Amino acid sequence: MSTFERALHHRLEQQRAAGRYRLRRSQRDAGVHTRIDDRDVLTFCSNDYLGLATHPRVVEALCNGARQHGAGGGASHLVNGHQEVHDRLEARLAQWTGRERALLFSCGYKANLGVISALMSRGGHVVHDRLNHASLLDGTRLSGARLHRFTHGDVAAAAQTLAGLPPDADRLLVSDGVFSMDGDCADVNALARLAERHDTPLMIDDAHGLGVLGASGAGTLEAQNVPLDQVPILVGTLGKALGTQGAFVAGSHALIESLIQFAKPFVYTTSLSPALAAATLASLEIVQCEPERRAYLHRLIQRFRQELTSLALPGITLMPSETPIQPLLIGSEQAATALSERLYEKGILCTAIRPPTVPTGHSRLRVTLSAAHTQADLDRLLETLARCCRTVTS
Amino acid sequence: MSTFERALHHRLEQQRAAGRYRLRRSQRDAGVHTRIDDRDVLTFCSNDYLGLATHPRVVEALCNGARQHGAGGGASHLVNGHQEVHDRLEARLAQWTGRERALLFSCGYKANLGVISALMSRGGHVVHDRLNHASLLDGTRLSGARLHRFTHGDVAAAAQTLAGLPPDADRLLVSDGVFSMDGDCADVNALARLAERHDTPLMIDDAHGLGVLGASGAGTLEAQNVPLDQVPILVGTLGKALGTQGAFVAGSHALIESLIQFAKPFVYTTSLSPALAAATLASLEIVQCEPERRAYLHRLIQRFRQELTSLALPGITLMPSETPIQPLLIGSEQAATALSERLYEKGILCTAIRPPTVPTGHSRLRVTLSAAHTQADLDRLLETLARCCRTVTS
Repeated sequence: MSTFERALHHRLEQQRAAGRYRLRRSQRDAGVHTRIDDRDVLTFCSNDYLGLATHPRVVEALCNGARQHGAGGGASHLVNGHQEVHDRLEARLAQWTGRERALLFSCGYKANLGVISALMSRGGHVVHDRLNHASLLDGTRLSGARLHRFTHGDVAAAAQTLAGLPPDADRLLVSDGVFSMDGDCADVNALARLAERHDTPLMIDDAHGLGVLGASGAGTLEAQNVPLDQVPILVGTLGKALGTQGAFVAGSHALIESLIQFAKPFVYTTSLSPALAAATLASLEIVQCEPERRAYLHRLIQRFRQELTSLALPGITLMPSETPIQPLLIGSEQAATALSERLYEKGILCTAIRPPTVPTGHSRLRVTLSAAHTQADLDRLLETLARCCRTVTS
Repeated sequence: MSTFERALHHRLEQQRAAGRYRLRRSQRDAGVHTRIDDRDVLTFCSNDYLGLATHPRVVEALCNGARQHGAGGGASHLVNGHQEVHDRLEARLAQWTGRERALLFSCGYKANLGVISALMSRGGHVVHDRLNHASLLDGTRLSGARLHRFTHGDVAAAAQTLAGLPPDADRLLVSDGVFSMDGDCADVNALARLAERHDTPLMIDDAHGLGVLGASGAGTLEAQNVPLDQVPILVGTLGKALGTQGAFVAGSHALIESLIQFAKPFVYTTSLSPALAAATLASLEIVQCEPERRAYLHRLIQRFRQELTSLALPGITLMPSETPIQPLLIGSEQAATALSERLYEKGILCTAIRPPTVPTGHSRLRVTLSAAHTQADLDRLLETLARCCRTVTS
């Protein structure tokens, strides 16, 4: 065995010994009702919040898109991987989010890396909410700029950080719109006022808000009535509420042109599959024209919170969230894992989220609700939680 | 106008003044015969080397995959975005490349970032061929390890760099299999011997070799008869010869498990669309079972080289390449752009590649050939090149 292979084994053993080994499960197909290891499973952990990944119109648009535009783009957007269907989707995303333009990426990770590494460099400062997504932190590391983190949601702490930066240095203030592991929202108006006071551009990654929040589903900014020009950089994903894969950045013409010129994760990569772009045009139309899906989802969320509150299950704390992400705070890694495993034995999949994804002592079940869940699905989750919880925490 | 917006405009003006402004063109649909700006265009710049992006069986597999598995995965691979169709594709990719296992990523950029940032960290050293792909360099920057670059293809220079590293430091030797802008191949056997001598793992990104080189299309390693255990880390893409989108890493069980545990660009991102995974199963079958596509492509390549050599066009140097990437070295940015524009006026799209993608004075037309091109398409390229070349360089 080579030195390299031995080192890999050693590190994996350490991960096992720390109780943090990640297991990957395969489900048979899509949807909230599926099969894993030859048993029926009801899932409560997907980010397909509106159930659009399996929507017949989205699937049909993907098929027609593939027939007309191909399964893959075959080249980068700047060589000849860019098709008119990408333009149409970019125009619709810009219109939806009220921006001059939008730019597609084949995944959200790359969109965040692209924006931050194109705009910032060594000598610059990027100020983050402590719970920002990993891709925002990696984008900052890649840019060479200095990374600052303020206490989650603490705008006064962010103000203090900004006030302490060298006055002439480049700076960027960055926050998730909806935080992926807590489900709560940033106070974007407060961040925008702060950014304006410090003449600092504000970037919001609204991956989990777009499609779900706001009257037209335009996300956290719409829900909070944030004036659009206060958030010059908006990032969204196609892989969550929109049900497909990929991401976009929306902003001014100059922002988008700057990314086309300078964002290496945009320039040096194969374009988003044109078939996926066609599919996303269909899902965006559903998001905009069928607000009843969002309304139903929010009724499910309210019911879940009300009934879980009245159940008052020992050892479980419902976190303050009005989004489909409804984490149940457990505390220890062991207890969170045990509850997740008990649920799984009863046919419900709901992943335990543990360090390093969340801080030590904050392990949780990350319940996510979807418009694809029925009221009966929710009944089953609540009943099963009540049963399992007694066994695990008693 | 905000300070931020003014800064964006200023930087774009600088890019324009330097003559390096990148323009993005939209083509109407896929394939080598398409329409751009309402005119018929024959393209010679795609990486869809086998013409599989529009192959009916691949398109049909994408449609069936979407119907059964959804348009998108809806969650990360470790939550519940991983389906059995992903397992099937991983197993087939591992088998094809002769490895214990393979791991899917939704794009190649992220695969390279994932591998290097998971395996290396501050204090480590990553030794690169100078022409390695941007994503390999960005992966190194993200990892915090020190980046070393040796003269393109110069194994002795690589040896010198490796010999100069601190003996106990982590190190990694990295090379493209086929270089994306030159079309030539790394001498993988020589790199492997060197890596073994220095007890250093070797990583080969064979994005442009897989599907195209080797009897079964298994790429540069197969073509050069490299013993597989000499290259413990192999990266491939699904977005070039395989015609879809995404990427994979192939290697030992311990390597793949390490990426699942530690590669943030794998952990914190939505899974590859299961529909794309289904489509790629179909294209991989074509790659393996229809070697005549590869044979035809290599006949096209030989004919292109022979006829271009006999044409002896002034100001154009054919670079030494046996792959579908057949760059025509021009030299100055202006001349390369002018030739590309003249070709475009005659209905042929072939992108000029300029700094910073290639070194100053090495601007070129990057001609790429595909099994989707007919002999008549190639005739037209050669005739048009001859005509345009006289006008541009005279």
